[in-house]
Amino acid sequence: MTTILHNLQGIVTPADTVGWELNIQAGVALALEDGRIRAIDTPEKLQEMFADARRIDGAGCWALPGFVDPHTHPVFFKTREGEFSLRVMGKSYEEIAAAGGGIRNSVRVFRQASFDELSELTYQRIRRFLEYGTTTIEAKSGYGLSLEDELKSLRILKKVAELLPITIVPTFLGAHEVPDEYQRDREKYVDLIINEMIPRVAEEKLAEFCDVFCEKDVFTVAQSERILLAAKDHGLQPKLHADELFYTGGAELAAKVGAISADHLLKISAEGIRSMADAGVVPVLLPGTTFFLGKSGYAPARQMIDAGMPVAIATDFNPGSSMTQNMQLMLTLSALYLKMTSAEVITAATRNAARAIAREDRVGTLETGKDADIVLLDIPGHEYLPYHYGVNHVRKVIRHGRVVFERQA
Amino acid sequence: MTTILHNLQGIVTPADTVGWELNIQAGVALALEDGRIRAIDTPEKLQEMFADARRIDGAGCWALPGFVDPHTHPVFFKTREGEFSLRVMGKSYEEIAAAGGGIRNSVRVFRQASFDELSELTYQRIRRFLEYGTTTIEAKSGYGLSLEDELKSLRILKKVAELLPITIVPTFLGAHEVPDEYQRDREKYVDLIINEMIPRVAEEKLAEFCDVFCEKDVFTVAQSERILLAAKDHGLQPKLHADELFYTGGAELAAKVGAISADHLLKISAEGIRSMADAGVVPVLLPGTTFFLGKSGYAPARQMIDAGMPVAIATDFNPGSSMTQNMQLMLTLSALYLKMTSAEVITAATRNAARAIAREDRVGTLETGKDADIVLLDIPGHEYLPYHYGVNHVRKVIRHGRVVFERQA
Repeated sequence: MTTILHNLQGIVTPADTVGWELNIQAGVALALEDGRIRAIDTPEKLQEMFADARRIDGAGCWALPGFVDPHTHPVFFKTREGEFSLRVMGKSYEEIAAAGGGIRNSVRVFRQASFDELSELTYQRIRRFLEYGTTTIEAKSGYGLSLEDELKSLRILKKVAELLPITIVPTFLGAHEVPDEYQRDREKYVDLIINEMIPRVAEEKLAEFCDVFCEKDVFTVAQSERILLAAKDHGLQPKLHADELFYTGGAELAAKVGAISADHLLKISAEGIRSMADAGVVPVLLPGTTFFLGKSGYAPARQMIDAGMPVAIATDFNPGSSMTQNMQLMLTLSALYLKMTSAEVITAATRNAARAIAREDRVGTLETGKDADIVLLDIPGHEYLPYHYGVNHVRKVIRHGRVVFERQA
Repeated sequence: MTTILHNLQGIVTPADTVGWELNIQAGVALALEDGRIRAIDTPEKLQEMFADARRIDGAGCWALPGFVDPHTHPVFFKTREGEFSLRVMGKSYEEIAAAGGGIRNSVRVFRQASFDELSELTYQRIRRFLEYGTTTIEAKSGYGLSLEDELKSLRILKKVAELLPITIVPTFLGAHEVPDEYQRDREKYVDLIINEMIPRVAEEKLAEFCDVFCEKDVFTVAQSERILLAAKDHGLQPKLHADELFYTGGAELAAKVGAISADHLLKISAEGIRSMADAGVVPVLLPGTTFFLGKSGYAPARQMIDAGMPVAIATDFNPGSSMTQNMQLMLTLSALYLKMTSAEVITAATRNAARAIAREDRVGTLETGKDADIVLLDIPGHEYLPYHYGVNHVRKVIRHGRVVFERQA
């Protein structure tokens, strides 16, 4: 059965697999079939081709590829608004973490919570991504930090993916922090990740990627390398939290191990940019985190674009350093603080984001054969999207050819 | 007829007419009558008192006073996303204005647009304030800058106020810029404002306040004083855009003329703070504008709070320097960049904002006798509100005792 998505202003999509030009076609409609885009043409032509098609009313909107959010941490128990208040009063994120707050705070409460409680909370949180136009998210474990609790995280993601009309790409992040019980023997925790967690995650096919928080006072470059090489051996592709708060050489490591992406990169070196560009590592920038932590130095996006890198952006949704599901606001932050044009921020949030999670063959552009994951935005043109900020421009969200969210006009 | 608002977590409201303590009462319900709050008590007690009352389901939310947005510019024709793109590429707001863009750009197109076109656009824009929980806005003219076009602006606001369930408090801002035709004789434009516009606006009762954009290269302190004193003579209370981009002594002028508020204040002097505090002028801070213009220096809110001033916050909704209707995001910006606590940002967006537009007797707190303008927020507690950013926490909006907006759960 074919469905025609009609009454659109037109479509806006990244054009090719590289570059920053948008393909803007006014007046077209889309034919959707078996969850994919079957054809893009004039409404008259599609009506002729598929005479008995069902119809979805585009409500006079522009159609864009559903946003792809390539970096989120949605599986946690308690929110951390108390730490947010401490930061407003002048404490830094690093001070809060050093005092036992931060990620370790989340780990302690996570371990007390049941699978069902956590599943329900994760479900409710992930549902809100859809409301703001995101149809694919990458989602990390990393608040369990024991074999059983990390497996629990990833199983929750699997369960929620079956319940919600959103694509969830799972990443194992056992190396998010060193839990309290290993603080005095951190290498032993690295061994646990390598010898027990990674083999089990791979065996149960619970994740596609393995990520590490490579950072001063968290995991060293040497530890990160050991973990990521072990992951590769088990078929998990490397990702890396790199050069966020301090320069450590994380970007260079990402290039060395052939990571699919390196994320954050506020303190990346010129050498890091060169080596990532050469190795084809996707830089995933998280301006919401810089904003939410009240930092002033954003990642050097323009240098990366100038170096030919396919910059992607993400929310970093997590309870400590970026509590939002709204990719549209990330577009505004990227325009204002990463100095990216509207064409660039749209590409970074769709095609390039898909590339950061190995989904560029399925999502991130509107093309024949791709998944029919489409967001309808009530805007006069694409330049308007980052400009009118802090409000939800989504009118409808279509995933695999079906309307899965609708906002009243 | 009485209505009981029940099934609430409770209420969160500024407590008194001064100070920053919130009054938080868990488990209470509200009785609403004739558009006002009749009683606040336990659900059982209210059910007993008003046995045949209708009911509104509070959906398990916290009830807060509807937000009051005391500084907006919603009556314009075209949006200015092109200038936003120029700023992303490195041009400053001041450069764009000096080249004939900015406010003068809006003025040229405004004059071409019909009353009906502008009314429809203004209606659509103001409707979105409600969606984000705002039940009262102050709204300025200022894109007409001729007698007829300024009257047109204010008449549009009057018409929209009759159509939408939101309270619109009108301000005459003929002194928003000097229009093209008076660039060579700026004093003549000041004379026009004083001799023709103000008397006519007052006579037709089209505004309660008169505002001036007192700024380097716009209106001088001396011109601003002449305008505001003339306004006072005609019964329009002074307001002032002061010390935003450059220090001019605007805050001191606001104190001298007895303005009800002075707004922006990024460059306010210590003397300005003292004189405004002594004169009881409300500082209205607009962190969205600082954010949207990509500036780093926010207004010194903590110094103002320490000086005992009733700081208020607003969106500054306008097409050039702050294109948003979302007060919830202003709460987050105020927490992050003005270093205000969650209790402070809530008070600044309700009670203090009401005071900035002389509505503190009617709105801004939940108290018996006040207007039943209430926002129901789907949050676990008030500290959560600025923390979970960029998403709409509104579940229902009640204005004058009736549900006027509802967001699907």
